[in-house]
Amino acid sequence: MEYNKVTPKIIEELKEIFGEKNVLTSAEELEPYSYDEGGKQYRHMPDVVVKAENEEQIMKLMKLANREHIPVTPRGAGSGLAGGAVALYGGIVLSLEKMNRILEIDEVNMVAVCEPGVVTNDLCKAVAEKGLFYAGYPMSTETSYIGSNVATNAGGSKVIKYGSTRSHVLGLEVITPTGEKLVLGGKRRKETSGYSLLHLMIGSEGTLGIVTKVIVNLMPAPNTMVDLLIPFAKFNDAVKASSNIIVTTKVYPISMEFMDRFGVNFATEKLNLPKLPAQDTAEAYLLITLEGKNQEELDTLSEKAGTAALEMGALDVFVASSKTESERLWNIRIKIPDVMLNSFRHLLVGDVVVPRSEITEFIEKSQKIIEKYQDVQASFLGHIGDGNIHPMAIDTAADRTDEDWIDVSDKLYGELCLLGAQMGGTVSGEHGIGFVKKNILAKSLGEYTISVMRGIKRAFDPNFILNPGKIFDPE
Amino acid sequence: MEYNKVTPKIIEELKEIFGEKNVLTSAEELEPYSYDEGGKQYRHMPDVVVKAENEEQIMKLMKLANREHIPVTPRGAGSGLAGGAVALYGGIVLSLEKMNRILEIDEVNMVAVCEPGVVTNDLCKAVAEKGLFYAGYPMSTETSYIGSNVATNAGGSKVIKYGSTRSHVLGLEVITPTGEKLVLGGKRRKETSGYSLLHLMIGSEGTLGIVTKVIVNLMPAPNTMVDLLIPFAKFNDAVKASSNIIVTTKVYPISMEFMDRFGVNFATEKLNLPKLPAQDTAEAYLLITLEGKNQEELDTLSEKAGTAALEMGALDVFVASSKTESERLWNIRIKIPDVMLNSFRHLLVGDVVVPRSEITEFIEKSQKIIEKYQDVQASFLGHIGDGNIHPMAIDTAADRTDEDWIDVSDKLYGELCLLGAQMGGTVSGEHGIGFVKKNILAKSLGEYTISVMRGIKRAFDPNFILNPGKIFDPE
Repeated sequence: MEYNKVTPKIIEELKEIFGEKNVLTSAEELEPYSYDEGGKQYRHMPDVVVKAENEEQIMKLMKLANREHIPVTPRGAGSGLAGGAVALYGGIVLSLEKMNRILEIDEVNMVAVCEPGVVTNDLCKAVAEKGLFYAGYPMSTETSYIGSNVATNAGGSKVIKYGSTRSHVLGLEVITPTGEKLVLGGKRRKETSGYSLLHLMIGSEGTLGIVTKVIVNLMPAPNTMVDLLIPFAKFNDAVKASSNIIVTTKVYPISMEFMDRFGVNFATEKLNLPKLPAQDTAEAYLLITLEGKNQEELDTLSEKAGTAALEMGALDVFVASSKTESERLWNIRIKIPDVMLNSFRHLLVGDVVVPRSEITEFIEKSQKIIEKYQDVQASFLGHIGDGNIHPMAIDTAADRTDEDWIDVSDKLYGELCLLGAQMGGTVSGEHGIGFVKKNILAKSLGEYTISVMRGIKRAFDPNFILNPGKIFDPE
Repeated sequence: MEYNKVTPKIIEELKEIFGEKNVLTSAEELEPYSYDEGGKQYRHMPDVVVKAENEEQIMKLMKLANREHIPVTPRGAGSGLAGGAVALYGGIVLSLEKMNRILEIDEVNMVAVCEPGVVTNDLCKAVAEKGLFYAGYPMSTETSYIGSNVATNAGGSKVIKYGSTRSHVLGLEVITPTGEKLVLGGKRRKETSGYSLLHLMIGSEGTLGIVTKVIVNLMPAPNTMVDLLIPFAKFNDAVKASSNIIVTTKVYPISMEFMDRFGVNFATEKLNLPKLPAQDTAEAYLLITLEGKNQEELDTLSEKAGTAALEMGALDVFVASSKTESERLWNIRIKIPDVMLNSFRHLLVGDVVVPRSEITEFIEKSQKIIEKYQDVQASFLGHIGDGNIHPMAIDTAADRTDEDWIDVSDKLYGELCLLGAQMGGTVSGEHGIGFVKKNILAKSLGEYTISVMRGIKRAFDPNFILNPGKIFDPE
């Protein structure tokens, strides 16, 4: 697909819409908007970055872009891993960083209304002050925006109990690629009023519309919680135990995370943190958060889960004795990918989902796949309780070029994703497709399904100007 | 839109596909397939009814229908209220009544896999035997099919705590209008792999595809439960209390239902049942189901909810003392619409949703709207805890014609639905749009949104042959 370039005249028009200070054009200003956390090797420079302050500006922008046939790429915090916010065809990057107000916390309807650029954690804190709880909580909660959580149907560690972002979004306001406004859902809890454009929008990675307002469901704050850290001498025992603990106890924990020795060692060393219990003998850990109505129930649950784990080969079961202790454990889990992304020049943080029953086989086969590639080291991390695994592949070659790594990691990642899909899983659990995984998606879904998605895209965006080249190729 | 007629040659071809016994053509056989529970006044005769036994037959059917340009209307139990299963343009009705097997209850992944014609209650019972729980539970559970629950995103009384059918569907297999097979979702719990065709399909009322397999989420069986029956002397106090109880206790009950005196009197008299407590003094009741981990927690919750109700003007709080007592209460609630549908020649069972904060005002205004119409009696019922109200309008004129009643009820219903939509609600919570409400939907959403939906329809069904004239007009 061919697009037009941004001319000086269009820049002037953009300045009229957004104000001079909100239109960036110098190479230096554009550079930070040219990549996401997936890595600089996937960088594409936009022609211009605009920062929106309200929906009227976005409507005008889309009408202009449609008229001039110029691609627009919406962007949140840039914390994505799949290139979703990268301007693949150049053109205009629309940053939503300034639309960051929490507009309302409505305690009667138990919802919060916010602009798309609200940092997830800011929302969590604000509602917690009212004794309420926002359960859509990605691991990137301290950086990612709520609008981007919607765009990628973000997951995280609490999906096992509470579901992905989709489960918590009641309403959206959206500007379509042609500059129309859609009001989808609302402060209501039931709806069968035509096709669910609300749910179609969620997870569409900014290709069908630009989210300008989000209404999320709030819940009463959870009750007492406890974190268990369970080391296993054998990697495979930890993997197997994850599913067994759930089947045996018939209780969904709030979280059930997996970390391997490589990741834990790397994070504790780089961050200069004290070692975890059994760090020298454990090949892997489960980190489990349980919720109970009171201490008594929590003790019963912990006992059940702990016993199940020990029967599956756990070395021990450590119960976090304080909030500080819990935070210490979670800090290591959360920091592993960040530290690794900052330390290695080339790193693939994968994202594959399989049914819970297939996790053991998937991880075993994935290890073998990664080991086939020369100078690549495997490590595993993930929300194992819901079957969402993050296989990581680290480039250990001293002098591999960006192009070579893209080639290797694309092949390797393709193998992992298609393995997951063949096992009844899917090629992305929470990171999305962006452009990094669109060939993998096409292979996994087949041409007919992609053609239906393209037809849907056309219903919103006849000129393919909104975030083109993401999820699938324009034509 | 013009369609072709079913010729004798096509009947022969259908017999080859489905077998002679599964192709109905006589007027007598077709008649029961010509209407749904919305009423015989909306009847349309199909040219032929076919009963599918497997997906291959459905693929062949759709290829034939596409080639011959003949409309196909999929049909479940016919318990819908909006005409969704009525063959508006004649042609072929595809009954799914024979595809009624529960294929698998998978305890490791905690899912059930079933064909679309499984009666919801059969699924509930089968999983209960394994100590598990299917939380998608419409009021029509004893008749409606699971596939049709998916088609209408069915709700019911447990949505307040567990969400609509959408919240419980993990996967679908679907035959598209062009005879292709789509496998959407699966036994997995996270997904961001392109547009969610799964969620688009849910609630699309059989216009985008024919569901041939459903994978539903199961949960551990709920803990101890208790039912509270709370009579209020004043109708409005009961309405107001519903929202207040939730805000005060900060606990979501499993159910919170509203019944007015008219409905309760009608059901107990017609079914010859003993009166409810305070039936002579109460203008309305709340029926609340609470869940707790144990009796102690349940007592605390009941106490909280009861106190809140009494402060809001409740006459008393009756706690069901046994399972039989609970069943007696629920039986009355469930039977009210059935008894009324069977007793009145003309009855509108409405379905409107508003935010919880707007319920009181909505019901007050709705009463005034219904009272404007001559010889029409109002009664209210509903899942008040989630803001889903079923306003009922009863024709009390002795000799009104079907045509006159369609005219009156369309006008009246339009007013109620648009009132709800204006208050931040929506025109259908669980019954769907079918063809009975498509003008109302168009008014509520506006032409642009409908045009987007039509574009989506086209991506699946370029010839508009699957269930045409539902949700919106073909072109």
